[in-house]
Amino acid sequence: MIKTSVAIAALSAGGGAALTAALYSLRSNKDKLADMPPTPAPSLFSSTAIAASPTAVAAIPANQVFGGPGGPSSSSSITPGSAPVNPGGLFEYGFPGPVSDIATRAALISSYDRRTRNPHWVAEHITPESLAKRDGDRKNSQFLEDPAVPAKFRALLKDYYRSGYDRGHQVPAADAKWSQAAMDETFYLTNMSPQVGEGFNRDYWAHFEDFCRRLTQRYPSVRIVTGPLYLPKKDPVDNKWYVKYEMIGTPPSVAVPTHFYKVIFAEDGRVGGNVAIGAFVLPNAPIDNAKPITDFEVPVEAVERASGLEFANQLPMQRRRRLCADTTCALVIKDYSERQKAFAKGRSASS
Amino acid sequence: MIKTSVAIAALSAGGGAALTAALYSLRSNKDKLADMPPTPAPSLFSSTAIAASPTAVAAIPANQVFGGPGGPSSSSSITPGSAPVNPGGLFEYGFPGPVSDIATRAALISSYDRRTRNPHWVAEHITPESLAKRDGDRKNSQFLEDPAVPAKFRALLKDYYRSGYDRGHQVPAADAKWSQAAMDETFYLTNMSPQVGEGFNRDYWAHFEDFCRRLTQRYPSVRIVTGPLYLPKKDPVDNKWYVKYEMIGTPPSVAVPTHFYKVIFAEDGRVGGNVAIGAFVLPNAPIDNAKPITDFEVPVEAVERASGLEFANQLPMQRRRRLCADTTCALVIKDYSERQKAFAKGRSASS
Repeated sequence: MIKTSVAIAALSAGGGAALTAALYSLRSNKDKLADMPPTPAPSLFSSTAIAASPTAVAAIPANQVFGGPGGPSSSSSITPGSAPVNPGGLFEYGFPGPVSDIATRAALISSYDRRTRNPHWVAEHITPESLAKRDGDRKNSQFLEDPAVPAKFRALLKDYYRSGYDRGHQVPAADAKWSQAAMDETFYLTNMSPQVGEGFNRDYWAHFEDFCRRLTQRYPSVRIVTGPLYLPKKDPVDNKWYVKYEMIGTPPSVAVPTHFYKVIFAEDGRVGGNVAIGAFVLPNAPIDNAKPITDFEVPVEAVERASGLEFANQLPMQRRRRLCADTTCALVIKDYSERQKAFAKGRSASS
Repeated sequence: MIKTSVAIAALSAGGGAALTAALYSLRSNKDKLADMPPTPAPSLFSSTAIAASPTAVAAIPANQVFGGPGGPSSSSSITPGSAPVNPGGLFEYGFPGPVSDIATRAALISSYDRRTRNPHWVAEHITPESLAKRDGDRKNSQFLEDPAVPAKFRALLKDYYRSGYDRGHQVPAADAKWSQAAMDETFYLTNMSPQVGEGFNRDYWAHFEDFCRRLTQRYPSVRIVTGPLYLPKKDPVDNKWYVKYEMIGTPPSVAVPTHFYKVIFAEDGRVGGNVAIGAFVLPNAPIDNAKPITDFEVPVEAVERASGLEFANQLPMQRRRRLCADTTCALVIKDYSERQKAFAKGRSASS
């Protein structure tokens, strides 16, 4: 805090935007994610001159600043303070964002994409113990618009209504059965993406979620990150690649992802122990139950490149295992109608 | 800083993820963007247990946390510390992001979208004085990959090569003529989007950029935010809305935006004075020079809803003016071939 105060004071004495930039570059190198500058007081916005307000730059999250004059990624020879302009002065009117609204619930953490009105990702944690406890029932839960997202960026129940798509849980309700309140929190639309119902959300995807839960029979702790993707497809006519996805709602507001990913971290339960990682990308479309789940296995980096996110970049290589080499990756298909038939057969045979 | 340390200590004593969440909700309310928790020491990642590591939640940017048990947006009745799981433990392996790499250059600040490999936005500042100084020449500048973006998310020169699209400056090089070094910095690909060349980037869009510069004849200080959009279009066959855009590069990496926006802030030069705001959305396509620029004027909120960003949310309503009511919004078409003809005509007339 002392360092930050000193920095602001130096800037107030006429350092200019370039110096601010250099300063932040330095700081973001030395202590990533660490001590943010204090919020400019509200009075700042009404009492400062239009052009030279270097403190406005303080509104930039420090961990996102790099480059600039004197910074590590720039070879600019511009003398700090000599620039005739101050692009950071804009932030007196507010910082544009994007803000990835992060919600911390009991059973999940979600990061929201205000442009697609889908999650960026949702992270969950399941264990044999958490799945053994069954206090929640989804019949008691209801889908909820998330009031923590500003109204103009919020996904709405009416956006999904009659869209033809399911409100597809990214963290499954069934993974939070250990408490009704925890399960209820999985019903926020910030944990939802439009998913094809028949053949996907209610079938193959559900079996895939069941596979994740079954991993707790072998691993004492399993973490899963789930989210949407918008992948390009090659047009056979012009041989170019296009991303194409529907937008539901009136006006069109919520993107219908082309694919979904899961990155699974199966932990061996030891401190600093091994982590078996599996990444999967499935199309948002009906999938034949006969298709092996390994058909959808991809390198983690493929999900990273497609999503713009990073997974496990702090996990040392020597602690990593490949999930589908460490255990058998196969779905158990529990087809409702098949089981009904088997049941009827059994009854008629015994009668 | 003291408050943060206390918080971490309390958590280490067994508060659990739920408490962490409540704590952050509280903090993010009280002091938005303010004092971030200290970075977990690198040793944390190798020395902590797999499940209960509430300090890992400290990796979440404080200003992005809301909700959760006890938080303002949740009515969860889950007792802090009673949850059998800890979803935030994932962050021991790294925080997924998204990171919007912010670059602070002398003449611009840019925010980068790692998924589309385009900017989210670029912000600039021009004044009559900055435009009067002409030390830079774009002949001396060259397009640059931005090494400050991690390699797997970086837009590359080869992605644009033979794509059929221009490397379209979002902050125009011509706006940074006041210094060669400042102009050079506008050539980073983090300031670039694929733009249709003929009829757009080299024509109508260029005239629009010229219009922005001309605003300095009336306003002593002009700020401009520019960026890409990916807008849906109604399919006349099924009446549904689809977003469709090309991806260039091998593998396909850089999105070709369907539209571009500019939000212009024309300041009157007085402390706490009026700001004339204009928002414009243009298709990434050839546009007839005869089309008035006012045809592309939109409410600021339209850009906000489409981009997921916010503009001027800290600027009081009474200081706002509508740009195209405050001044004449009209392009001056400087057609090169027309001027050549006029010049030739003038010469033959005078000879």
